[in-house]
Parts: sequence; C-alpha cells; structure tokens
Amino acid sequence: METITKAFGLAIQARRQELKLSQEDLAFRAAVHRTYISQLERGIKSPTLNVIAALAEALELAPHQLIYRAENLAQKSSE
Amino acid sequence: METITKAFGLAIQARRQELKLSQEDLAFRAAVHRTYISQLERGIKSPTLNVIAALAEALELAPHQLIYRAENLAQKSSE
Repeated sequence: METITKAFGLAIQARRQELKLSQEDLAFRAAVHRTYISQLERGIKSPTLNVIAALAEALELAPHQLIYRAENLAQKSSE
Repeated sequence: METITKAFGLAIQARRQELKLSQEDLAFRAAVHRTYISQLERGIKSPTLNVIAALAEALELAPHQLIYRAENLAQKSSE
C-alpha cells in the first residue's frame, strides 16, 4: 500500500485521539463500520474521496486539512 | 454522487486545462486509463486516496492543494 495511505491512517488515528474518540465513536460519526476504521488506521485500505470527506467532517476538519496532516506524516516517515 | 466528488472532477479538469494537458496526457502521467479521467471529470467515480495522490502529482500539486481546490468549487456550487 502507498505511503500516503499509511500516513492517512496515522493522521486519522492521531486526530481521533486528540478528540478523545474511540474507533466506535468515529465509525458512528462517519457512518462507516468500526472494522473499516481499524483497516484505515492500519493503512491497509485506501479510502475513496467520499469516505475522506465523511471522516474529515467526523474529525472536525476540512478534507484538505486531514490530507495535509497525512502528507506531513508521510514526509516525516521518509526522512 | 457526493458534491465533493463532482467538485473534484471540476478541479482536475480546470487544473488539467491550466497545464494545457489533454485527458490522454493526464492519464499517461497518472498511470490510469483515459476513460477513468473522463469519469472522474464528470464526477461519476469517487477516486481513492492513492489515485488522488497520483493525479495531484501529475497535475503538479500537493494532494491537499487539489482537495482544497475541490472544496472551493463545492462551496461555490452550493452558494
């Protein structure tokens, strides 16, 4: 799986923890299954843009802000 | 299909035209099929994050910049 997808998983996990949400809480807010959140956080699924938008809203960010966090994490992991 | 997906299609089309690229050029650069570019531009496919990253690179933008352009277009269309 691509670096950006792994970094996206780390970004949603970090933001979820900032907001003190469980995977169940985030799944409920974004209207996806809890196991899908787990797969995303482990970087083993590449979300579609629709899912990215739903996750960003659930995490109280604009979609581009969530992607920007993932890019920063991807850059750090390649340094 | 969601507003963000339609707006994403408009954003990649606008950026492609800024760079004076054909759909074939963009498809080649992003290593996807030309018909898929056409479907994305019409907002009938929701790209995965991996595809978003490949398209952004092909369009000489960071992924979050491409998403930001889509968000602005989505906002305009809802005003």
